[in-house]
Amino acid sequence: RVALPVFASDALSSVAYAPDEILLTLSLAGVAALAFSPWVGLIVVAVLLIVVASYRQNVRAYPSGGGDYEVVTTNLGRTAGTGVASALLVDYVLTVAVSISAAAHYASAAVPGIRGHEVIAAVVAVSVLTLINLRGVRESGRIFAIPTYCYMAIIGALVVTGAVRYFAGNLPQADSSGFELVGEAAFDQGLVGIGGAFLLARAFASGCAALTGVEAISNGVPAFRKPKSRNAATTLLLLGVISSTMIISILLLAQATGIRFAEDPHTQLEVNGEPVSDDYVQIPVIGQLAESVFSGFPPAFYAVSAVTGLILVLAANTAFNGFPVLGSILGRDGYLPRQLHTRGDRLAFSNGIVTLAVAAIVLIVAFDASTTRLIQLYIVGVFVSFTLSQLGMLRHWTRELRTEPNPAVRSRMKRSRVVNGIGFGLTGTVLIIVLVTKFTHGAWITLLAMGVLFILMRGIRKHYDRVRDELALDDVSAARALPSRVHAVVLVSKVHKPTMRALAYARAARPNVIEALTVGVDREDIDGLVAEWEALDLPVPLRILDSPYREITRPVLKYVRSVRRESPRDLVIVYIPEYVVGHWWEQLLHNQSALRLKGSLLFTPGVVVASVPWQLASSRGHTGLEDDTFLHGRRL
Amino acid sequence: RVALPVFASDALSSVAYAPDEILLTLSLAGVAALAFSPWVGLIVVAVLLIVVASYRQNVRAYPSGGGDYEVVTTNLGRTAGTGVASALLVDYVLTVAVSISAAAHYASAAVPGIRGHEVIAAVVAVSVLTLINLRGVRESGRIFAIPTYCYMAIIGALVVTGAVRYFAGNLPQADSSGFELVGEAAFDQGLVGIGGAFLLARAFASGCAALTGVEAISNGVPAFRKPKSRNAATTLLLLGVISSTMIISILLLAQATGIRFAEDPHTQLEVNGEPVSDDYVQIPVIGQLAESVFSGFPPAFYAVSAVTGLILVLAANTAFNGFPVLGSILGRDGYLPRQLHTRGDRLAFSNGIVTLAVAAIVLIVAFDASTTRLIQLYIVGVFVSFTLSQLGMLRHWTRELRTEPNPAVRSRMKRSRVVNGIGFGLTGTVLIIVLVTKFTHGAWITLLAMGVLFILMRGIRKHYDRVRDELALDDVSAARALPSRVHAVVLVSKVHKPTMRALAYARAARPNVIEALTVGVDREDIDGLVAEWEALDLPVPLRILDSPYREITRPVLKYVRSVRRESPRDLVIVYIPEYVVGHWWEQLLHNQSALRLKGSLLFTPGVVVASVPWQLASSRGHTGLEDDTFLHGRRL
Ligand SMILES: [K+]
Ligand SMILES: [K+]
Ligand SMILES: [K+]
Ligand SMILES: [K+]
Ligand SMILES: [K+]
Ligand SMILES: [K+]
Repeated sequence: RVALPVFASDALSSVAYAPDEILLTLSLAGVAALAFSPWVGLIVVAVLLIVVASYRQNVRAYPSGGGDYEVVTTNLGRTAGTGVASALLVDYVLTVAVSISAAAHYASAAVPGIRGHEVIAAVVAVSVLTLINLRGVRESGRIFAIPTYCYMAIIGALVVTGAVRYFAGNLPQADSSGFELVGEAAFDQGLVGIGGAFLLARAFASGCAALTGVEAISNGVPAFRKPKSRNAATTLLLLGVISSTMIISILLLAQATGIRFAEDPHTQLEVNGEPVSDDYVQIPVIGQLAESVFSGFPPAFYAVSAVTGLILVLAANTAFNGFPVLGSILGRDGYLPRQLHTRGDRLAFSNGIVTLAVAAIVLIVAFDASTTRLIQLYIVGVFVSFTLSQLGMLRHWTRELRTEPNPAVRSRMKRSRVVNGIGFGLTGTVLIIVLVTKFTHGAWITLLAMGVLFILMRGIRKHYDRVRDELALDDVSAARALPSRVHAVVLVSKVHKPTMRALAYARAARPNVIEALTVGVDREDIDGLVAEWEALDLPVPLRILDSPYREITRPVLKYVRSVRRESPRDLVIVYIPEYVVGHWWEQLLHNQSALRLKGSLLFTPGVVVASVPWQLASSRGHTGLEDDTFLHGRRL
Repeated sequence: RVALPVFASDALSSVAYAPDEILLTLSLAGVAALAFSPWVGLIVVAVLLIVVASYRQNVRAYPSGGGDYEVVTTNLGRTAGTGVASALLVDYVLTVAVSISAAAHYASAAVPGIRGHEVIAAVVAVSVLTLINLRGVRESGRIFAIPTYCYMAIIGALVVTGAVRYFAGNLPQADSSGFELVGEAAFDQGLVGIGGAFLLARAFASGCAALTGVEAISNGVPAFRKPKSRNAATTLLLLGVISSTMIISILLLAQATGIRFAEDPHTQLEVNGEPVSDDYVQIPVIGQLAESVFSGFPPAFYAVSAVTGLILVLAANTAFNGFPVLGSILGRDGYLPRQLHTRGDRLAFSNGIVTLAVAAIVLIVAFDASTTRLIQLYIVGVFVSFTLSQLGMLRHWTRELRTEPNPAVRSRMKRSRVVNGIGFGLTGTVLIIVLVTKFTHGAWITLLAMGVLFILMRGIRKHYDRVRDELALDDVSAARALPSRVHAVVLVSKVHKPTMRALAYARAARPNVIEALTVGVDREDIDGLVAEWEALDLPVPLRILDSPYREITRPVLKYVRSVRRESPRDLVIVYIPEYVVGHWWEQLLHNQSALRLKGSLLFTPGVVVASVPWQLASSRGHTGLEDDTFLHGRRL
């Protein structure tokens, strides 16, 4: 079950920031409100387990593993499918931005040198991940397994040790427990009234960051071992239970150690009525817990910070794998350029990786690597896909039930439908809560980005559809008609090997008419060419086109069109000798006229452009395969 | 004789800055040294007239007008020719930088708003010139004629009025005549000793800026009306005489009005022992003269400044015409990419114009639009071409004399040789003076730039020579041998119109073997394709290549190579259906796999790549001609 660690990093890493978000939101109402944190955590866990239960239905119903995009497209149609695809694309970008920002804060807690430079550290981390992924590491489950199990083990040790010391009565208070929390004036009376309820809702919405990563498993079913859907369902359940345990334990321990965690520690935390000093660095909750629980053994704090940071980086890395795969699926379906689907095409994957990295870096820089602010954007995207996916499953079961006669199967389906129905109701409600409580906190940015992606993908698909209709075979017999004769035109600029090869190839194809064509730019050159041509005594006439303005393209185009006009049923094949070179700068020195001419000739109906390549010595060793990635730039 | 104004702007505009340079150099030795200025001017004029006389021999001997580059290459060989070409390329860049910087200073003298923003004004002016030239204005002699004649008229009026008022005894002193000139400490004793001689030499070298532009005429002979060489020779003489008169008159009037002109007015000019105020703006000499001579009639000052600024801009514009022409000639001779020679190729000309503009802007910004500092660079380039050109003419006459029997012709040739000999000796001496006195003032930059260009052009030429040797027909009969059979491979991805057209064209060419080829990326797609193919009942078999990694390029390449291996004497023609689209962004959505495949196939010997275009509706209206410039980007 090697797939567990790969997907676990995304889902389990959420524990590294979700409890922090609950605490800092409640902190706005002062220290008394912190007592609500385990209860808020409990509701989050309840939602998490229901979403897990719902997704277990998804992976069973769609064992081939199209994920949310397939479920929604199949059951709710293309428009909703495109919507969920936009949400997932945004989700990947935010997985990177949030995970790496959180990792940067764990790093700065452990390494004082990073403090104040979290943005730079995060940008460097994204860049390194990008380079590693561009080089195309084969992601091996084993590489993920070690840190993932380390993470589970170390958090497990933290929780168990903390619980033992708590019940033994010797769990130390956290360093931050000495701070006074300055709540907002609105919450003078504590969490009462509409304001209190709204803040609780906000805390809950923030805590739902714990659910991010669940969707990654359903999108990654194909990576599981057989039986895929059962393994995926088991992994989901395992992760749900482990995550839930971690979240509740962390919130309880945070309460037990009196941790104070604020969005803006320098205005919200005070010591003896004075704000904390400027150089106070707020350590993430898990880090503060490690300090308390393992007090007297400082290395444990560094180990917890390092392992947590690592798991966050691995979570970001899963997005680097998933984003191009989704791009490929969207390319296959015509919502993104089709070439993204040709998996061997490393360039397409590289483009995906670079796009993801640039978008994530923009977000990190724009939001100052603030995990809290980025999470507001993240949750929206994740819950849009949750909600649409569960609605799709609801439709799925309803449709299946319409044709299923077997009563045993029917009752199982009905049970599944109930689970997905609850999932839909719940995630939809959470989505509304998130939108209401977070809209001005950044959720609008996610909606805007999704909207732009949606319109773009619809436009691309419409274009492909229009082209498909335009190209569809409407009249098979007309399409099968052959041109009556072939008129070969060989472009000649000099008498040398490439020209002779082009001539030989053109003659070998035995056209009905063959002629060589040259453009008279310099009188002397032409005279020399004609003399050499006559000396060769070839059975091919040489036609010279005048070019008063020393152009190449226009006279050739004019001539080819005149040939076409005279015998419209003929096929004109223009043979162009081309040099193939090994270095891009050599390309600048050759073929420019040929390339431009080819470009223009392609606009002329009834003309085939045949490139006859001559491989120069410098091109040897470039087989056209080894570094496929750069071929495009060098050759065409 | 419309050509006079076109070339006159470059040569006559030098009068707008050369006298200033003489005055400011002499000023370093204090006010007494200014008395030497007319004498320095006289030597400059003498050199100018001798250079003009020499160039009259050039244009007579080379009426087709290759200019310095042709003269030097023909007579001194390719290495010297490349050297003079480097000098001329640098010359064009500096013509723009110097002329526009000078124009900016005339503008800021007349328009207070520009003061202190000369660099920005100059950069804007270069950018505007660039845009105008990119749009491809047909340079009409008439457009040049009006400002050129205005300029000659207004400077003539200035000189005549000034002389009349001087002899009438009512020529007012210049505003700047009241300033005290602070000379350098080294010249306490005036212009004596080696230091004094060196400063006089420097002043002379600076004054030689007056000669810049003369070379432009010999490079532009083809633009003259017939009899070209006589018209060019007459123009040269006319311009020489007009320039000389202007320079001497301006220097005499500057002396009569007591103009003070310093390189750094804020340290060198004083009023009552105090430096001039910070907001003092030093007006160019011609401007100061206009103020004095036309005192009491302020509009005259603005008219003189405007017309002089305009002529300077026109001078810069001649470089925008000349630079791409020289690039074209160098492209023809293989020193720059060959495509620069195809004149109709607007893109090549655009590249030249942009290159010139960028280089000039870099210089203007780097030298803070300081005419004085830029001129140090300018003169070197101009005198390198003068000297090499005259040496080339010397060789020319010596060679001609070896075969000429007619005594009358011989004596005319000998007379010409003497003139060019004097020209060579003089320009060579001036070049040495310029290098000695100006090396540390920036002349080294010109030499460095020339060296880099020289090495670059030699490298390009060597590359072309190597390729030419590699491609030369060594065995004509082998080159004439034809492939025995033709094996046509039609790439198929779908059954639609473009595929049918590619099939029809391939069949029309009646190959010995024909087959359709597809790459199996998705099982379903392939099944559908096979079914459609069978339904069509075509006499062409469909071969399906496996692609476990969803690649296109590699399997096709492998298959084509296996075909080549089995029958090495066969010709393989790969027909690729391509969509031709109208917008660049559509191109991103299509053909990417085809383009990459084409690029790779070209590296495979014995394979012809035939593009069978299908013109999509969006490509209509794009005939491949209208906007040639953008075709390259859009299509290939
Ligand atoms: K996630
Ligand atoms: K996550
Ligand atoms: K994700
Ligand atoms: K000039
Ligand atoms: K010049
Ligand atoms: K020039």
